[in-house]
Amino acid sequence: MEVEILVIGNEILIGKTLDTNSNWIAKRIVKYGHKLKRITAIEDDIIIISNTLRNILEREPDMIITTGGLGPTFDDMTLEGIAKGLNRELELNQHAYVSIMRAYEHAYERGILKLEGMTKEREKMSYLPQGSIPLPNIRGTAPGVKLKEGETTIFILPGVPAEMKAMFLNVINPILKEKRGKFVEKGLYFMGIGESQIAPYVTKLEEKYSQLWIKTHPRIGLSLEVEISITGFNVENGDALANQALNEIREVILNLGGKIRER
Amino acid sequence: MEVEILVIGNEILIGKTLDTNSNWIAKRIVKYGHKLKRITAIEDDIIIISNTLRNILEREPDMIITTGGLGPTFDDMTLEGIAKGLNRELELNQHAYVSIMRAYEHAYERGILKLEGMTKEREKMSYLPQGSIPLPNIRGTAPGVKLKEGETTIFILPGVPAEMKAMFLNVINPILKEKRGKFVEKGLYFMGIGESQIAPYVTKLEEKYSQLWIKTHPRIGLSLEVEISITGFNVENGDALANQALNEIREVILNLGGKIRER
Repeated sequence: MEVEILVIGNEILIGKTLDTNSNWIAKRIVKYGHKLKRITAIEDDIIIISNTLRNILEREPDMIITTGGLGPTFDDMTLEGIAKGLNRELELNQHAYVSIMRAYEHAYERGILKLEGMTKEREKMSYLPQGSIPLPNIRGTAPGVKLKEGETTIFILPGVPAEMKAMFLNVINPILKEKRGKFVEKGLYFMGIGESQIAPYVTKLEEKYSQLWIKTHPRIGLSLEVEISITGFNVENGDALANQALNEIREVILNLGGKIRER
Repeated sequence: MEVEILVIGNEILIGKTLDTNSNWIAKRIVKYGHKLKRITAIEDDIIIISNTLRNILEREPDMIITTGGLGPTFDDMTLEGIAKGLNRELELNQHAYVSIMRAYEHAYERGILKLEGMTKEREKMSYLPQGSIPLPNIRGTAPGVKLKEGETTIFILPGVPAEMKAMFLNVINPILKEKRGKFVEKGLYFMGIGESQIAPYVTKLEEKYSQLWIKTHPRIGLSLEVEISITGFNVENGDALANQALNEIREVILNLGGKIRER
C-alpha cells in the first residue's frame, strides 16, 4: 500500500512543536512493508486543508492519515476542511456524540473537569463528514474518523501523541498487518574512506541488485563516518539478497583500506 | 516573507531519521516575524522532486528551503530534480568545483580520507542548475545553492544537521533578519477546566483581538492540562495586545474555577 501523512497544525509550522508523530507512524508503515510516499505539514486553515487533501487524492494513495486539529476550539478545523475537500456536509454523528458525552461525564465525575454536560464546543466534535465511521479515543475526547473516497481510505487522527498512538494501534496497525508486504533493512558504518570513494561501487551494486535501494549517509561532516544502508520493499529473498550485497560492500571497504563498524 | 520547506530523503519516509531540521528552521523563520506556510517531505526521486518544486512555485512563496540529497552518490538527486523542475540544465560550476576539491584535499592531507583528487562522483556535486550561486559548506563537502526563479529565492541545503545549520546561519539568517517582521508568542497552562469549557471565551477573544491567533492545546489527555498560546505576526503593539488578551484569559480561567500555571 502507498500512504501519505497530512499533518495539520500551526504549532508545527511556528516550530513550537516538533512533529514526532510522522516518524512514529512511518516506522510502522515500513515495518509491514508498505510505503510512505509523502509527509505534508500545513496550517489550521479550511481552504488550505481542503485544497491539500484534493492534491493528495489526485496522487491516488491507498491510505491517507491526517493528524491534528480535532479539538473543540474555533481553530480546530480539520473536519470542516476535510468535508469541504470531499464536497461532503458535516452531520451530527450519534456514536461520536455519545462517546464525547460519556468522556466528559467521566471526567466530571472524577473531578477532572468542572463543567458538566454538552456545550456547543463539545458538540462540534461530533459533527463529522458524511460517510464517517467514528473511531474511539480512549486517551481523550475527540473521536477519530475513518472515511472512504474512491479507492482511498482516509484516517483522521488527533495530534496529541498518546491519543494518536492508541487510535493508530487499535485501528490502523491491524490493516497494515493484514495487507503486509515485506521490508528489509540492513547496514553498517565505515570510516577511513569517503562516501565519494565508494560511490562507483555502490552504483555498480545498485545495478546488480536492482530490487534493493543501496544508500550511503554521511554521519559526521567530511565523511568521517558513513553509514551504508540497504533497503527493499517486497523483494523475493530480500533478506538473503541484502546479506549478499552487504558482504560485497564489506569486501570493497576493506580492499580500499577502510574500517568497518557493524551496527 | 512566506517560506516553504522541502525535505528530500528516503530516510525520513522510512522512519529511519526523525526530521529535526524543519523544526530548527521553523523557529528561526518565526523568530524574525516571517511565516512558514508548509513543510513537504518526499523521496529521492527526480520526477517527484521536480513536480513538487513546481507545485510549490505555483503558490509563489518568497523563499523555498530544501534540505537533503546533495551528496556524491547515485541516489542524491536533489540538484537534478530541481534543475528539471526549473527547466534548466546542470552545468559545471567552477567555484563549487574548487571548494569541493579543496575540501577533499584537506581531508586527504589530514589522513581522514585515503583517496586523493577528484572522481566522477566528487565532480557530480559541482554540477549545479544554471544560474546557481554555490554556498560554502564549512562542515562538509557538498556546497549548497542559492537560486532565483521569478520572485522566489530557492536555497538548497544539505541534510546533515551540522552542515545545514552552519549554512543557514551564514546565508539565510541575515536575510530573515534584514527583512524582519515582528512575531509575538505568549501563553500559560491551566488545569481544572477543559478546553471545551473555555472555547466560547476564546472565540470571543479571537473576535476582539482579531490580529492575534489564540489557540488552546491539550497537553494531557482529557484536558487534564491545557496550554493556551497567543501568537501574532507583525501586529502593531503586538506585545501589549497579547498581554492584555492573556490577562482577560487569566480572569476567565479563575472565574470558571480553574488553576493557572505560568510558563
